[in-house]
Amino acid sequence: MNFKSDNEAPAHPRIMQALVEANEGFATAYSDDCYSRQLDARLSEVFETECRVLPISTGTAANCVALAEIIPPWGAVMCHARSHIQNDEGGAPEFYTAGAKLMPLAGEHGRLQPEVLAAAIDGAGVHGVHNVKPSVVSITQATECGTVYRPEQIRAIAEVAQERGLPLHMDGARFANALAFLGASPAELTWKAGVDVLSLGLTKNGALNAEALVVFGHPEWLEGMERRRKRGGHLLSKMRYVSAQILAMLDDELWLELARHANARAAELAAAIEASGVASLHWPVEANEVFMKADPARLARLKAAGFEFHIWPGHDDLARLVCSFATEQEQVEGFARALVE
Amino acid sequence: MNFKSDNEAPAHPRIMQALVEANEGFATAYSDDCYSRQLDARLSEVFETECRVLPISTGTAANCVALAEIIPPWGAVMCHARSHIQNDEGGAPEFYTAGAKLMPLAGEHGRLQPEVLAAAIDGAGVHGVHNVKPSVVSITQATECGTVYRPEQIRAIAEVAQERGLPLHMDGARFANALAFLGASPAELTWKAGVDVLSLGLTKNGALNAEALVVFGHPEWLEGMERRRKRGGHLLSKMRYVSAQILAMLDDELWLELARHANARAAELAAAIEASGVASLHWPVEANEVFMKADPARLARLKAAGFEFHIWPGHDDLARLVCSFATEQEQVEGFARALVE
Amino acid sequence: MNFKSDNEAPAHPRIMQALVEANEGFATAYSDDCYSRQLDARLSEVFETECRVLPISTGTAANCVALAEIIPPWGAVMCHARSHIQNDEGGAPEFYTAGAKLMPLAGEHGRLQPEVLAAAIDGAGVHGVHNVKPSVVSITQATECGTVYRPEQIRAIAEVAQERGLPLHMDGARFANALAFLGASPAELTWKAGVDVLSLGLTKNGALNAEALVVFGHPEWLEGMERRRKRGGHLLSKMRYVSAQILAMLDDELWLELARHANARAAELAAAIEASGVASLHWPVEANEVFMKADPARLARLKAAGFEFHIWPGHDDLARLVCSFATEQEQVEGFARALVE
Amino acid sequence: MNFKSDNEAPAHPRIMQALVEANEGFATAYSDDCYSRQLDARLSEVFETECRVLPISTGTAANCVALAEIIPPWGAVMCHARSHIQNDEGGAPEFYTAGAKLMPLAGEHGRLQPEVLAAAIDGAGVHGVHNVKPSVVSITQATECGTVYRPEQIRAIAEVAQERGLPLHMDGARFANALAFLGASPAELTWKAGVDVLSLGLTKNGALNAEALVVFGHPEWLEGMERRRKRGGHLLSKMRYVSAQILAMLDDELWLELARHANARAAELAAAIEASGVASLHWPVEANEVFMKADPARLARLKAAGFEFHIWPGHDDLARLVCSFATEQEQVEGFARALVE
Repeated sequence: MNFKSDNEAPAHPRIMQALVEANEGFATAYSDDCYSRQLDARLSEVFETECRVLPISTGTAANCVALAEIIPPWGAVMCHARSHIQNDEGGAPEFYTAGAKLMPLAGEHGRLQPEVLAAAIDGAGVHGVHNVKPSVVSITQATECGTVYRPEQIRAIAEVAQERGLPLHMDGARFANALAFLGASPAELTWKAGVDVLSLGLTKNGALNAEALVVFGHPEWLEGMERRRKRGGHLLSKMRYVSAQILAMLDDELWLELARHANARAAELAAAIEASGVASLHWPVEANEVFMKADPARLARLKAAGFEFHIWPGHDDLARLVCSFATEQEQVEGFARALVE
Repeated sequence: MNFKSDNEAPAHPRIMQALVEANEGFATAYSDDCYSRQLDARLSEVFETECRVLPISTGTAANCVALAEIIPPWGAVMCHARSHIQNDEGGAPEFYTAGAKLMPLAGEHGRLQPEVLAAAIDGAGVHGVHNVKPSVVSITQATECGTVYRPEQIRAIAEVAQERGLPLHMDGARFANALAFLGASPAELTWKAGVDVLSLGLTKNGALNAEALVVFGHPEWLEGMERRRKRGGHLLSKMRYVSAQILAMLDDELWLELARHANARAAELAAAIEASGVASLHWPVEANEVFMKADPARLARLKAAGFEFHIWPGHDDLARLVCSFATEQEQVEGFARALVE
Repeated sequence: MNFKSDNEAPAHPRIMQALVEANEGFATAYSDDCYSRQLDARLSEVFETECRVLPISTGTAANCVALAEIIPPWGAVMCHARSHIQNDEGGAPEFYTAGAKLMPLAGEHGRLQPEVLAAAIDGAGVHGVHNVKPSVVSITQATECGTVYRPEQIRAIAEVAQERGLPLHMDGARFANALAFLGASPAELTWKAGVDVLSLGLTKNGALNAEALVVFGHPEWLEGMERRRKRGGHLLSKMRYVSAQILAMLDDELWLELARHANARAAELAAAIEASGVASLHWPVEANEVFMKADPARLARLKAAGFEFHIWPGHDDLARLVCSFATEQEQVEGFARALVE
Repeated sequence: MNFKSDNEAPAHPRIMQALVEANEGFATAYSDDCYSRQLDARLSEVFETECRVLPISTGTAANCVALAEIIPPWGAVMCHARSHIQNDEGGAPEFYTAGAKLMPLAGEHGRLQPEVLAAAIDGAGVHGVHNVKPSVVSITQATECGTVYRPEQIRAIAEVAQERGLPLHMDGARFANALAFLGASPAELTWKAGVDVLSLGLTKNGALNAEALVVFGHPEWLEGMERRRKRGGHLLSKMRYVSAQILAMLDDELWLELARHANARAAELAAAIEASGVASLHWPVEANEVFMKADPARLARLKAAGFEFHIWPGHDDLARLVCSFATEQEQVEGFARALVE
């Protein structure tokens, strides 16, 4: 019973089916195939605005190609202290940006606070060339704490950024989970709220290896992003297979269906934890991640009973439980029972 | 009728089957799954020596992760002027190495010449810190000209390199084609001939997106390679699908079967060209690439007739025709007929 | 009356005299002149151990060449949150290290705390390749707060570092001020306390543009440091003039004489502030920097009266006053009078 | 009797005098002093157009800061195969540009040929993102062969560059020698001929450590150049001393006086060689460098007699002899006599 990560789930059968269907005949290499060429139009439809799309096979690469294009090497990325780019990408953002600096900011429940952000930007560059220069804001949706930014929260951050001339990047590794939770449209959570570029993650949501860098406006970024994707070794020769996954995810709103499933399991898990009397929720559960506080001995017993999850580094009483499209109700119920035993 | 690139072929059905089979249940993320964990042992068997393997999804990434680990930023990569790393990776080697320099060397039929290499290494660094420092030799097997290094040719290059303290990297984007042509063993073409690290390409040979970085000895390189793969955004969360492809390619020697098929089609094509009286071979055909010289007007007619291939940049009378596992005998025969029409 | 920075003082007359004397005849270029060739021996004498020395013209370059050599690109530099490398070098450390990460740590009075450091190192890398890897510890002597590490404090930090396999770098932009304050020997404050490499700053202390990278042990670092200095554009063709300054600074202990002078003025300033009743010291004054808290209106009046100093960013009631070899007692007395007016 | 390099000469007495004069009182740090602030106006006067100037202490840094700002990491610098940036800067251009590629081109006497350049640019990028992208042209004045570009030669190169949207950089390590040889104005050899940015070298010409990056137009480059200078560790705190040298060099046309002196000695040397009957000139002598072909045994005798010069790497019968402001007529005569002995 694996609650370790949505990354450990398999690919959804419809994704696999799409791969099989894409596996017919020859196709132009390097993202010039008939699947990849549909992406701009298809995503423009989904996002209700003209956008440009680069298929890419990891979220780290999507984030880094985007950030590297947007900021100069002497720039700073304003981000949450818990963000994936800051903690979990092995320094990839610094590598791709030729040494830009990430400025980790505090903020409750994994969300950047507009006033904290504003103060950080305004205070960071007062010494001119002696400082790095705040150059982009990056937020994660859903956040690393399993919470979700509301459209107006994104808008407030975007306003702080725009007033200071900084574009807004969204790491959407779990973007569909946020969509599903809010019932909002993709447009409302992105460009309508001021997002300039989105790393749209589909792998955690049930793809095999498919992410999309979605750019709203900013045609001046395209060449650089394509060049950086190539230089990063991420321009797959047989890109059709990545693009076919993206298209399959959007067909009949599969991405939302899968995210709703994962969110529902997380909500059930959260309810069970709250009802347990022996554990509590560390952060509100709004997407597919559950952060549970419990006695370390109890956590150890759960592990011994075959439940897989991560103990949060440095916090032996904090467990992260992640649900995915592949998490079944019985698994959650089994966990709930074991929790109180 | 696509002779443009082996990259434009689909994945072989047995590869697709392997993906489907791997798509069962949960698997530990980030290359710690049961497929990825088999790679060291499986490749050690195939190469008849203990080796360490990093699965990775593009050849550019494999080459660059390897080179970046081996040389310092002030180092120089000694390579053929026609090599992929020099011409076709958009500067990825310079990016991954933090600005190392590639030193392109001349050599007939795409092969590095030991004496040219020796002179280049010996002459390159005479001004100490004012020069970059030759730090690694990289060769391509099969070469960019469609020829194949014999074991003793590799050995001669390795000796030049070893005498000067430089390791030897092999870009094996079409390694299986070389194996198939020579009937040599993987060991004979690599570590037994002095190769320290191999970028083993399987995508052109019929995989979907699967390459393997194979390290012979040099345990001191492992951490850096793993870190660089991660920093490059190439540590796929669902790596099982890459590793499953690699394993499938080795099962029952599928990789050799596919390479033999592609080579055979190329040999037929070459024979037809030589027999045509209207075209000639620019370089010996030893693997799955055919370089054909013909009148530009004739090349244009072939294109108009639906044959797809690349005209070599700067040479309007030179066509590159590539065969793959998916190239059928009738296609070659069709081309042969059209050529003389 | 300039208390803005010791960087704004001129060069000491004996430094200028050394330049004039070095300006005779031809000298081998690129640090192979008779002055530069004396440095290893001369500094080995001063530091009472065999050390290797690279002359260089800025402290930022000295820090960055050192750090870049010591850590891999995926490494982390453990440093104080107020350190110069973190805040004041415009991202130069990230540039030179090809994107390593600085991990800013809290610590009273600008000093790293051994236990904080230990926890940070131990906690930072628990996710393997997903994290950057703590790879070097860097401390500043005297600190950015104007305080001085005692030998035993350095030793305690070095022990934390050594137990974890990390070398210790010291940014000694104001090293002589620390020496002068403690009356300790250069050896006691460096290698005897566990420092592996020192950026020895002389420019703030009265040189024109002279710093020395002093390496204790670690012959394996030398080539890389020399190569990185060159690649950074810091191998001056006429290096004799930098090296002559370094030698002049050491002659008759000029460096200590100048540092004692600067420290003495700072101590007088501190005493006057404490006695004033209208201002207070923000941090203990142990070297040549004084951090004074006072009413913003009073600070404005002092500025209007012609006293130059920096208001600390984000703190309108905190002034930094720096003394140098060129600060005269009357200037301090003048400031003291003006303060209470 | 040192003909090894103009880098081995001392600083001219008037430069040293300028340093002594600049060494009065306090001055704002980091290039905001009264000397540095004069540079824009002073150089604008000399170049007869509004230009912006960054003082910097090495030519390598000037070249690299300029190139890094102009081109993207995936760009290519089109330059002569003998250029300093290609051969003699230890990979600094690759470092500063985050891995851009230098494309070395052939050309007689060290000069780029417009038609070779045009073909190289047009041929280099035909494979889009798979190739690096020609992004700047860099020429050296005087060339590495000791020859000088005429204004119309520069103009022809600039036209090739401009038609393709590439800016033109000039490495003017020996710019004054070119001016002196041609009797042309600084404007005629730079912006009037299409140069966008000049690395103006003064160190080889008799300064201690003074170069100036001179930008014609392109205000959009300024921030990046200043940031990159800082990140490179090249923003000297006491920049006044560099700027004072630059100003002193321009006063009463000292730079031209010194260059004329050096050129005159080189011309005398060339005449003596041609008259000797035992040696010959390898390239035309137009600036202050003389490339002499002679029997290796004769070269060895000259060295044994105390004449210092470089044997060209890989050519044991080719000697480089460099004259400077400090080269005296008797030295040349002495060499001439020794040559024929």
